[in-house]
Amino acid sequence: MSANIRIAVDAMSGDLGPRVVISAALKVIASFERLELLLVGDSAQLEQLLSGFSAPFISRLSIHHAADVVTMNEDPLVALRHKKQSSMWLALEMVRDGKADACVSAGNTGALMAISKHLLKTFPGIERPAICKSLPVISGRTYMLDMGANLVCSAEQLAEFALMGSILARATLTVDPRVSLLNVAREEEKGTAVVRAAQHLLKEDPRINYAGFLEADQLFLGQSQVIVCDGFAGNIALKASEGASRFISKKLEQAFHAGFWRKLMAFWLRPFFYRLKEEFDPARFNGAIFLGLQKTVIKSHGGADEYAFEQALRVAIEQIDQRVAEKIGAQLAHQ
Amino acid sequence: MSANIRIAVDAMSGDLGPRVVISAALKVIASFERLELLLVGDSAQLEQLLSGFSAPFISRLSIHHAADVVTMNEDPLVALRHKKQSSMWLALEMVRDGKADACVSAGNTGALMAISKHLLKTFPGIERPAICKSLPVISGRTYMLDMGANLVCSAEQLAEFALMGSILARATLTVDPRVSLLNVAREEEKGTAVVRAAQHLLKEDPRINYAGFLEADQLFLGQSQVIVCDGFAGNIALKASEGASRFISKKLEQAFHAGFWRKLMAFWLRPFFYRLKEEFDPARFNGAIFLGLQKTVIKSHGGADEYAFEQALRVAIEQIDQRVAEKIGAQLAHQ
Repeated sequence: MSANIRIAVDAMSGDLGPRVVISAALKVIASFERLELLLVGDSAQLEQLLSGFSAPFISRLSIHHAADVVTMNEDPLVALRHKKQSSMWLALEMVRDGKADACVSAGNTGALMAISKHLLKTFPGIERPAICKSLPVISGRTYMLDMGANLVCSAEQLAEFALMGSILARATLTVDPRVSLLNVAREEEKGTAVVRAAQHLLKEDPRINYAGFLEADQLFLGQSQVIVCDGFAGNIALKASEGASRFISKKLEQAFHAGFWRKLMAFWLRPFFYRLKEEFDPARFNGAIFLGLQKTVIKSHGGADEYAFEQALRVAIEQIDQRVAEKIGAQLAHQ
Repeated sequence: MSANIRIAVDAMSGDLGPRVVISAALKVIASFERLELLLVGDSAQLEQLLSGFSAPFISRLSIHHAADVVTMNEDPLVALRHKKQSSMWLALEMVRDGKADACVSAGNTGALMAISKHLLKTFPGIERPAICKSLPVISGRTYMLDMGANLVCSAEQLAEFALMGSILARATLTVDPRVSLLNVAREEEKGTAVVRAAQHLLKEDPRINYAGFLEADQLFLGQSQVIVCDGFAGNIALKASEGASRFISKKLEQAFHAGFWRKLMAFWLRPFFYRLKEEFDPARFNGAIFLGLQKTVIKSHGGADEYAFEQALRVAIEQIDQRVAEKIGAQLAHQ
């Protein structure tokens, strides 16, 4: 039997506090026999939230006290200097010290990035980790990176992202993931100088199954398993999609709120609309991977509810199970 | 009575050819008494398409022969050098020579940009025009620029776009348009160096009602009347939204194609879905404005149907009626 998977959970960060984290932790641990969760945070609060549970899996949950917490709008550098007793710091320290295999946090993204880099280090040659997310696609699964950690990127950085994304997709999805660069057109000669230079690097890299440029209206078709862009474009693409999705939901609501028959139809149709919302729901795709770190760190959305935090934990489990960080390290060492 | 509005229409460019252009032209000219349309293209074809019409407004339509056409995938520089007898070139020449007030074309964007710049010139200080589009928003109307003409921009360029967009919105929408910069976060200290530098320029400019950074998930709320970004981000934002909208339509279709009752409901609901599609339909917002040129040039989508081309003509009419290019020229001269 393979070894247990141990995840250090920053139980205090995020907008909704430890109650959501504990509920998600209990759900996930009940369904994974090989999972150990190390809950880091205010021990009094955490013990109280866990009191009353007596299922056998409780023995795989442990509480580790942290007196402090990184707030959501704290300056990352301030957190890095002054929050060494925070739940985020101590959870990451457990990963550094080999007490845990991964850390999951719903806290301040900038602080999580800064402290992760400081404690866990990036692989040689990687300046700053990329944030990688799953996209809702018509069929299959697609990873997109960077989603905001590196707003301006060089061609070399984009090529690194492509390689890391490719290793990730190969470990979790398919033997030969298709990799695309996000651009404003599909023609080879179009786009910024950086994107065109990255294209040359990807074409020449035998480790990458380069599938050409991809325009943003193709993002959700699932044709490529890895889509690479700088963090500015990644953020804009995902948020614009969320905005469009909300615009459409709003219009649907308006259409069904006038007249008796329409209201009745809206009632009948509720399950379909619910499913639709869920299909494009960011919560379903919660759990961003910091790629390029020597260890696994998963960032949950700050406002994640129980279901969403559960997804982030599942992403961490998959990363460890498939040894994604180790595989990236091994490939980068062979450059 | 104010003077007639004269629009030179490139009748040959675009994916769907002159039939669509002529249908749209006939519709629009019937509803605007002060409109004259100068149709530029193969006169034999155009005359044939117009033959049989005898309404009085036909006298406000004229045909101007062009022997050549710029193809959709022609290199802009090749078009600039060798397509001086094309419908696009001759239509723009009519604007240069004062025979028309504006040009509308569904042709090759790069060629239209290059020939427009060459024949009509930008205002002093404007290096390259910006492409400005209307967005579908929950309430009101929002302009976004640049949508792809300037992939990489300086802070000064973004500030110029903000000023031009502001003059446009003041002329067509409201006395005091709110202007926002597209960014990955709303906090002043976040984003790229370029976006932050542009923010400083906008804050100091008394001609601009600067409303702060805006994230891409807010694009469709209509809070700001002008949204400014570089052409790469603008393209990504709009296309990602279209992709999301198509993803949702696809999922809706799937939901209503299983089982008798659902199919019946889908039938009843057809008008609502149709309206929904229309609300987010790029065709409804067809007609991109090239801002920064000394004259008015409107780019219709290449695949525009009759309805969409009609919208592009209406955008041109509004631009001339509100003297947008002149107002931009006057404000830029006062810098």
